[in-house]
Amino acid sequence: MIFINIDKTDPSKHIYQQIYKEFKNSILERKVAENEKLPSKRNLADQLKVSINSVSNAYGQLLAEGYIYTIERKGYFVEKITEFIDQHETGAINFPSDLKEKFQSKEGWLSLSHMTSDISMFPFKKWLMYQNQAIKNHKQELSEISSPQGPYIVRKTISRMIAFTRGVKCEPEQIIIGGGTQPLVRQLMSLLKENAKVAIENPGYSRIHAVLKSMKFEVVPISLDKKGVDIKEIESSSPNILFITPSHQFPTGTIMPISRRIELLNWASHSNKRYIVEDDYDSEFKYGTDNIPSLQSMDRNHQVIYTGTFSKSLLPSFRISYIVLPPDLLRTYKQYYSNWIQGSNLFSLLTLHYFIEGGDYERHVKRMTLHYEMKRKMLIKQLLTTFKDDIHIKDVPAGLHFLAHFKTSQKYDDINERANREKLEIYSIERFTFDSKYKDDENSISLVIGFATIKTEEIREAVYRLYRIIK
Amino acid sequence: MIFINIDKTDPSKHIYQQIYKEFKNSILERKVAENEKLPSKRNLADQLKVSINSVSNAYGQLLAEGYIYTIERKGYFVEKITEFIDQHETGAINFPSDLKEKFQSKEGWLSLSHMTSDISMFPFKKWLMYQNQAIKNHKQELSEISSPQGPYIVRKTISRMIAFTRGVKCEPEQIIIGGGTQPLVRQLMSLLKENAKVAIENPGYSRIHAVLKSMKFEVVPISLDKKGVDIKEIESSSPNILFITPSHQFPTGTIMPISRRIELLNWASHSNKRYIVEDDYDSEFKYGTDNIPSLQSMDRNHQVIYTGTFSKSLLPSFRISYIVLPPDLLRTYKQYYSNWIQGSNLFSLLTLHYFIEGGDYERHVKRMTLHYEMKRKMLIKQLLTTFKDDIHIKDVPAGLHFLAHFKTSQKYDDINERANREKLEIYSIERFTFDSKYKDDENSISLVIGFATIKTEEIREAVYRLYRIIK
Repeated sequence: MIFINIDKTDPSKHIYQQIYKEFKNSILERKVAENEKLPSKRNLADQLKVSINSVSNAYGQLLAEGYIYTIERKGYFVEKITEFIDQHETGAINFPSDLKEKFQSKEGWLSLSHMTSDISMFPFKKWLMYQNQAIKNHKQELSEISSPQGPYIVRKTISRMIAFTRGVKCEPEQIIIGGGTQPLVRQLMSLLKENAKVAIENPGYSRIHAVLKSMKFEVVPISLDKKGVDIKEIESSSPNILFITPSHQFPTGTIMPISRRIELLNWASHSNKRYIVEDDYDSEFKYGTDNIPSLQSMDRNHQVIYTGTFSKSLLPSFRISYIVLPPDLLRTYKQYYSNWIQGSNLFSLLTLHYFIEGGDYERHVKRMTLHYEMKRKMLIKQLLTTFKDDIHIKDVPAGLHFLAHFKTSQKYDDINERANREKLEIYSIERFTFDSKYKDDENSISLVIGFATIKTEEIREAVYRLYRIIK
Repeated sequence: MIFINIDKTDPSKHIYQQIYKEFKNSILERKVAENEKLPSKRNLADQLKVSINSVSNAYGQLLAEGYIYTIERKGYFVEKITEFIDQHETGAINFPSDLKEKFQSKEGWLSLSHMTSDISMFPFKKWLMYQNQAIKNHKQELSEISSPQGPYIVRKTISRMIAFTRGVKCEPEQIIIGGGTQPLVRQLMSLLKENAKVAIENPGYSRIHAVLKSMKFEVVPISLDKKGVDIKEIESSSPNILFITPSHQFPTGTIMPISRRIELLNWASHSNKRYIVEDDYDSEFKYGTDNIPSLQSMDRNHQVIYTGTFSKSLLPSFRISYIVLPPDLLRTYKQYYSNWIQGSNLFSLLTLHYFIEGGDYERHVKRMTLHYEMKRKMLIKQLLTTFKDDIHIKDVPAGLHFLAHFKTSQKYDDINERANREKLEIYSIERFTFDSKYKDDENSISLVIGFATIKTEEIREAVYRLYRIIK
């Protein structure tokens, strides 16, 4: 027999839920035997002075969750339920304090981060207008799961655009859209898993390094000379996959000259198992010259895999990147990933389509190029004026960051601690070096300095803070 | 000596680009020797009768791309460039025709797909209002890369919501947001890589099966009895990771009763290396009962990993899913993925935050529950009226699909071909079975029937088409 205790005074406690909970707990705590018959709905309703509906709802819920069973014309019975093995006496483990996230207020901070883009000039109004157009024209698609590579019309628009701006030769079929370069590289590399030896630039992009390491690839860091990755080191370590950033080496800024490009393509052509992954992460921004044609545009053997992103040219928060696969890899990809759902938000992808088609992408990049060029010049001038002979800037007029070397006896740990005190977000080259081969001089440090976020009126103050940090 | 040919009649061809191209091609085609001196800017400008600026821009671009070098006060010289090894005579491989995507018009089609959600009642106006609020309040964040697990405030909102609706016990720290369940499962499983043996439901969710297979896991399909996964098969095949859908088994619809839940939790508790992944993909929709508490809510040993998605309750095109990790796995995750960028569009995530906080998520789910319940009833009634004794529907009032068995001598291949002719999108259970253990009767077929997309006024016609397909 189950004793049911109902509180009718609190209207927030539904009667049926109270009945449900009382039975549920009694059954779980084994206060009632299996196969015991429950009171009939009418009897219980009378006994508790509640509506038969409340009892009915409670029994329905108990039935749905499997606490009771019913036999037609006989009534409701308690289900046979295995006893819980409870290993922890308290039944609860407190959440470990080392996993609690700590928050640091960014109030009063200035940033020379290379990871951001300037949102102050983002044409939200235009973007939202195109978004409305996307919603209006693609209702059906938005309720469905799109193609595993992303909607065809968006891939077509991207393929046209990169043919025009980067000389990339590809069909929309070859493009795979994803929520960032990292997941795309991960998908790509899962196709190349067998016995792959991967080479990356050193210093280079640490997030790609992290993906490759997490996949347990053998990763060889390759030193840079003034033209880019050292071709002799590549030949001697003999990788089959090479990750490079020829348009604007990250983080040193080197634009790879044509001679090294041909050397690398020649290196690849010696075996059809070799691939070069060209990460064209910020090629949109060149100051003083036209865009530099992509490496992919010169590849005649389908051995260059091209990756691009809208994180720099639009905003990183959109999470829209893409990869262009050569036909043979595409064929493998389609076998592996036919059941994969592409990871980018479809609203943004379709909005992007109209944004590009309407000419606003090109206009935005042009406008941002002028804006970034101006900020870049101001920042470099302020740095030179302030640090005088103690700074050397690798001045490549491209991208959203540059590398600067400072004469100082400070070590990186001190620099980071002081930067924290001065409230200046900076990143040193340490973060992007992968073995002991890369070395700064004894008395100098190198910083990757981004100028996308900093406001023109903050440049002077940011450089003063930097001076106090480094001196 | 380089012969330069300029076309001044076509204003679309910039002079500087023509000069640049002529030099570039001459150098690549080795018509000019390395270290040969280029004409001075002034001389070339005079000779071609163009402005010195045009020559200057052309030389600048050639310099940036590394075709030429300059010596101060001496002029410009041709760079030494390695010769191209060209393996393919034509220099171009035609795009293989088998990789060309084919398009089938969906004009006139009706859909009983389980993969969609109903967009006709999506509150776009509200969503866009909250989006404006997100843009206004989070400008700075939108220009940056967010936390590797997604913005804290969004995780906090989700953790509160699933505590309330699903009884899930977790801190915002334990939530990882991603662009779909697939990439999240992939990240999770990369942490459990060593010697993991994975068990899945059979029939079950084929997209998860695909992820596990692509990662080369040993995957054991487990048969279902009327309570869900067969506990004896689990014990005998002894996996350490078990993927299940207890709230509404996909695709059979079974709601796992409390007794099986406790059996599974007991099974897990025998070793701290065992985990159960609870995929709660459509638990928002229950017709006639309250929500069924999640398995995670009963787990006292931190062995249940909970995953949820907004693909069913909102729209699949948002690509917003999340996973809740127990503390020990979270610690490992943070080590592996500190350098990872979360893959969901930040605009949608922050909009979702306000959408939930403003109460509109709850309102939308309530409204859709009524709407789906009505469509579900109509569809079932029409099916019963039309197929009479030749149909058996597994009528579990939950989710956005149900399983139906039809008496017929037709085979699946014929059914699919006829469905194509009748223009009806349907999915048979074949798609979701993973070995030969699952068998239909000789004279019956099973279809997974979704009712999210179909309009009420189309139901009758869809069922008639189905009748013509199956009879």
